[in-house]
Amino acid sequence: MQLYPKKKIEMVVEAARAPRLLEMIEAAGAKGYTVIPEVSGKGNRGLRNEAHISDVFRNVMIITITTEEIAERIVEESQRMLENFAGIVYVSDVSVVRDEHF
Amino acid sequence: MQLYPKKKIEMVVEAARAPRLLEMIEAAGAKGYTVIPEVSGKGNRGLRNEAHISDVFRNVMIITITTEEIAERIVEESQRMLENFAGIVYVSDVSVVRDEHF
Amino acid sequence: MQLYPKKKIEMVVEAARAPRLLEMIEAAGAKGYTVIPEVSGKGNRGLRNEAHISDVFRNVMIITITTEEIAERIVEESQRMLENFAGIVYVSDVSVVRDEHF
Repeated sequence: MQLYPKKKIEMVVEAARAPRLLEMIEAAGAKGYTVIPEVSGKGNRGLRNEAHISDVFRNVMIITITTEEIAERIVEESQRMLENFAGIVYVSDVSVVRDEHF
Repeated sequence: MQLYPKKKIEMVVEAARAPRLLEMIEAAGAKGYTVIPEVSGKGNRGLRNEAHISDVFRNVMIITITTEEIAERIVEESQRMLENFAGIVYVSDVSVVRDEHF
Repeated sequence: MQLYPKKKIEMVVEAARAPRLLEMIEAAGAKGYTVIPEVSGKGNRGLRNEAHISDVFRNVMIITITTEEIAERIVEESQRMLENFAGIVYVSDVSVVRDEHF
């Protein structure tokens, strides 16, 4: 079976930030995304809010599978958009069968 | 610590399709799976429905960790089962401590 | 864009076990985690309960991104804590932009 390498981007962000990020993801050229609503967690609230680094906050997880080129655009843009907000972004390698879906 | 390589298969499918896919996953030999209910998203509705490619739909995420051999069987079978339906399938590498659990 | 390699640990455990695992994750030095509440699944109930291996149970998914060293500590400790309980643990590679957040 032929598999095609893609990049998976996962973002955990405050729910209120999600709509703008999803628009950006589509504008960057990704063909789709999945949203897991209402995840919770502790973690980064951004470089400028280190005092609150362990606050509990409610957020969503956004998952996108796309090409390496589009992934790089999304990750870069996400850094700008999340600079003053809670949120983490990470990237990993996945393989897909249907190259044309991503 | 000794780690064992396994394959992780993730599927995002319409909730109505999940029971048949879970049966297939077990029949293929996987020892378990996790289901995240009620994820949402935009994306592929299958090659034959490209006009609806950006419809919002409600679905579930199915995650299975298994051996490479069983993973290949599951991915192949999933392609047949999802041919006319919304859904994406992707595979990645993970490591586990308890080889006998997967 | 500079990316930094990290480890992603995912655990699927009974909801009742989650608080102790989250405390352990923080004590081990991880800077954050995400919890997906109310996932469902079939799978391992631990080496000592193999008779129940296919029971349906309700649980949560815990996701942590951290350094390789801290990840190793968390995985080892999780094995001890889950020895008599349902739960699976797996590790994979991810890349992050903000090295200081993890």
